[in-house]
Amino acid sequence: MNQKSNQTPAIRHALTTKREDDFAQWYQEVVSEAEMAEESGVRGCMVIKPWGYGVWERIQRLMDDRIKAAGVQNCYFPLFIPLSYFAKEAEHVEGFAKEMAVVTHHRLIGDGKGGLVPDPEAKLEEPLIVRPTSETVIGQAMARWVQSWRDLPLMVNQWANVVRWEMRTRMFLRTSEFLWQEGHTAHADKGDAMEETLRALEMYRDFAEDELAMPVVAGEKPENERFPGAVATYSIEAMMQDGKALQAGTSHYLGTGFAHAAGITFQDREGTQQYAHTTSWGTSTRMIGGLIMVHGDDDGLRVPPRVAPQQIVILPMLRETPEDDALLAYCEELRKALASQSTLGEPVRVLLDKRPGKATQKRWAWVKKGVPIVLEIGGRDAAGGQVSMLRRDRLWNEAAKANFVGMAKDDFIARAAAEIEDIQTSLYAEAKARRDANIATATSFDEIAAFFSDDKRYPGWVEVEWARPTGDELEAVVQKLKTLKLTMRNTPLGAAPATGSCVFTGRPAVEKIYVARSY
Amino acid sequence: MNQKSNQTPAIRHALTTKREDDFAQWYQEVVSEAEMAEESGVRGCMVIKPWGYGVWERIQRLMDDRIKAAGVQNCYFPLFIPLSYFAKEAEHVEGFAKEMAVVTHHRLIGDGKGGLVPDPEAKLEEPLIVRPTSETVIGQAMARWVQSWRDLPLMVNQWANVVRWEMRTRMFLRTSEFLWQEGHTAHADKGDAMEETLRALEMYRDFAEDELAMPVVAGEKPENERFPGAVATYSIEAMMQDGKALQAGTSHYLGTGFAHAAGITFQDREGTQQYAHTTSWGTSTRMIGGLIMVHGDDDGLRVPPRVAPQQIVILPMLRETPEDDALLAYCEELRKALASQSTLGEPVRVLLDKRPGKATQKRWAWVKKGVPIVLEIGGRDAAGGQVSMLRRDRLWNEAAKANFVGMAKDDFIARAAAEIEDIQTSLYAEAKARRDANIATATSFDEIAAFFSDDKRYPGWVEVEWARPTGDELEAVVQKLKTLKLTMRNTPLGAAPATGSCVFTGRPAVEKIYVARSY
Repeated sequence: MNQKSNQTPAIRHALTTKREDDFAQWYQEVVSEAEMAEESGVRGCMVIKPWGYGVWERIQRLMDDRIKAAGVQNCYFPLFIPLSYFAKEAEHVEGFAKEMAVVTHHRLIGDGKGGLVPDPEAKLEEPLIVRPTSETVIGQAMARWVQSWRDLPLMVNQWANVVRWEMRTRMFLRTSEFLWQEGHTAHADKGDAMEETLRALEMYRDFAEDELAMPVVAGEKPENERFPGAVATYSIEAMMQDGKALQAGTSHYLGTGFAHAAGITFQDREGTQQYAHTTSWGTSTRMIGGLIMVHGDDDGLRVPPRVAPQQIVILPMLRETPEDDALLAYCEELRKALASQSTLGEPVRVLLDKRPGKATQKRWAWVKKGVPIVLEIGGRDAAGGQVSMLRRDRLWNEAAKANFVGMAKDDFIARAAAEIEDIQTSLYAEAKARRDANIATATSFDEIAAFFSDDKRYPGWVEVEWARPTGDELEAVVQKLKTLKLTMRNTPLGAAPATGSCVFTGRPAVEKIYVARSY
Repeated sequence: MNQKSNQTPAIRHALTTKREDDFAQWYQEVVSEAEMAEESGVRGCMVIKPWGYGVWERIQRLMDDRIKAAGVQNCYFPLFIPLSYFAKEAEHVEGFAKEMAVVTHHRLIGDGKGGLVPDPEAKLEEPLIVRPTSETVIGQAMARWVQSWRDLPLMVNQWANVVRWEMRTRMFLRTSEFLWQEGHTAHADKGDAMEETLRALEMYRDFAEDELAMPVVAGEKPENERFPGAVATYSIEAMMQDGKALQAGTSHYLGTGFAHAAGITFQDREGTQQYAHTTSWGTSTRMIGGLIMVHGDDDGLRVPPRVAPQQIVILPMLRETPEDDALLAYCEELRKALASQSTLGEPVRVLLDKRPGKATQKRWAWVKKGVPIVLEIGGRDAAGGQVSMLRRDRLWNEAAKANFVGMAKDDFIARAAAEIEDIQTSLYAEAKARRDANIATATSFDEIAAFFSDDKRYPGWVEVEWARPTGDELEAVVQKLKTLKLTMRNTPLGAAPATGSCVFTGRPAVEKIYVARSY
């Protein structure tokens, strides 16, 4: 499928690069043209611009509501973690203690040539690590806070920046600094901790599908993909439009390993000292990368209404003539009428864009940003009580007879909430249909290899059955898949039991697992 | 006034330390007993606990609404700033480039003895500074974003953590890492930039007084207290209960200095290249320290209802008997009725505290946390349709005939919103009366010295008139005040013009200024 786009040539898209021609280039172009983020000049760090940050604020608000509703309390823990904390949890060190930002000095002095250097006199006795994740430092706090079974469960969350030094970075998907939430909980026993691990996973699944309109598979990662130190790691996996999988959230059952390292112990009901069972779970600005690659099209981004900073933008076609006043008054009245409505459980977010500039340029800027609905209002519309509506999900789409649909202003006001809800639903349905159409099954490694052969540009995922090998046998599977640039994503929860043979070992299979290329 | 408390001995307060005995010790005790924050084990960094973070979340939400209403857009900029960015703005370097966290390595390796060390092979070519403030890195972005007068004003804000290495730290007031918002704007000329500088200052004044119930003086800092690189610095100053001043927010007019350093230029309407005029303004978790020292009493914290995570806590007096069910049902009905009400423009925040534990212990925990209203409900209250209300602002107060006031449940529901509003008003009135009663005027340095003499434990502020000397003459004033541990705080905006002589130089005065001890 290397042929060029077979779109009707009459359609000129707003982006230079089409998804099917160069997905990676297309992604960078959307990030830039939708004004989501840009390179900061600081290696591996991005600047998140207002529209991109607005999406993150929506994600934060909606996720935070869910976190609080589960009885988890927000706190804030230090950015810096003393080096020795990492050494306490050996397995954790193996996985994480490689690429991290290390603070070694606490003062700068002039170098005598107009420049600055770290002051050799101000070297820290113990280097500090900029947190890559906070299990170790939160474990220390939990050890202070937990004394008795009455203190459990202890459930905290923080919204924070974390740093993982990355050699190859990509905006939102892999940056040295990123923003996230990390939940950390301690429980009296494995049962409670596993319940919380799966509750967080289900919260993420529901969030991804309901808010981001992004269908995901919730399941358990194979052993080789576990978080360092975890007993079990679960993830939600979404399919991007190039068929690759994106891990969009993880939830870990940590057993008692971190509790041993930090000394999180409690007296149980019988008076015996026990180690707590801990969990951690996180989602990050990476979800925004997922949102772009699931919903974007060749005209830019399409933001699902639930997380759109604005759901409707009103664009008056200003002419810098005295008639502009009447046009603006009409648009302002429309804005007020829409802002007083509710949709998806909240007030409609509507912006009247009065900035100077050519109306068509402004329209395309909003199309590229992916605002769900653009209302273009000219002088004649105002005089006739009309509006002209563009639904971003139907741009160039056969379902729309024309891109702009004219209607009476009052009719639009009456149906605005329903239109917005319909866009949320239709974006999800479109993504789900695409995802489901691009999952195949394979019963042998040759079938897997055929599925991912070079003549398929964006092949999707395969579902296989396997015997869940461990140790060297697992490592052999991992290496074999690696030759095809493939990884095992997760074993879906709630799937029908395996009935065939393991696609890798030929032994009786014990469960299903997805195999895919991935971000 | 070194005598001990003359409280009626019958009253036993919830804290060990009284304000008048040891204010600094009292402060630490409130922070700890109200469960606001604690030492983290990481030097200079604190853990903000759920109740403290809940107050910060309220502050964030209310401040963010004001920031957005002013047309400022939230973004996110990198945590790390390359060393060379600081060297570009020489004056800025002088003031800030002293105590900062310096990242020099990006990898750890094992030391062969079970520990970890920074990898000598992974030394950064250019050290990175953990941002102490973001003028330099945001200036770089502004230089990219601003091309023409049409791009101005450019107004951005970020909510972020910043690090300033502090030798002596104090929770919320001075910590190495703290949370804040920093607004940064660029304008076409000085007039617009000054207008924005003062708009931000007025936003802070209004926020402090309306939301934190903390009276402040908004004014200009003297030259010696300016932000490094600023042309003018303004602040809001609040009086703590020990009479010291706390700078609770600042707003800076930066002239074109930062624009020159970062290259923020634009083509004006006439086609000429011009440097932009920039501003910056910030408030931080330090405000929470101010809130504690303005409103706390010898029983702990008192949180103004606007920023209280919970405004009402319902405490059922559970007995672990079958009657508990009816009591809890009664309390839940009460909670629902209160949660459906509005006060101060938002739904009432009410918590039903069902946790196990002795009712009196739980009551005192909430008193120390400073929740505005505690409702204690026993079995007899439930049977009789009654509630028992404790208003935190009136605990042990003569205005309250008794700490707990009994009333019919429906009466309380009907007046709950008004009680909450009244607490907000009364906390402000109490703080303002205290502040105003502790400001004196002085017309000579001797009068200043007398006012701050040792026999006054918590002397307050003096207002003086001065000639606004500069250079060496100003430095002499600063040094003379320093011998009494005094600083000049700010020149209040909108004050009556000076009429007398400069208290320091004897020349005709040009303006008023406050002199005080400070945090």
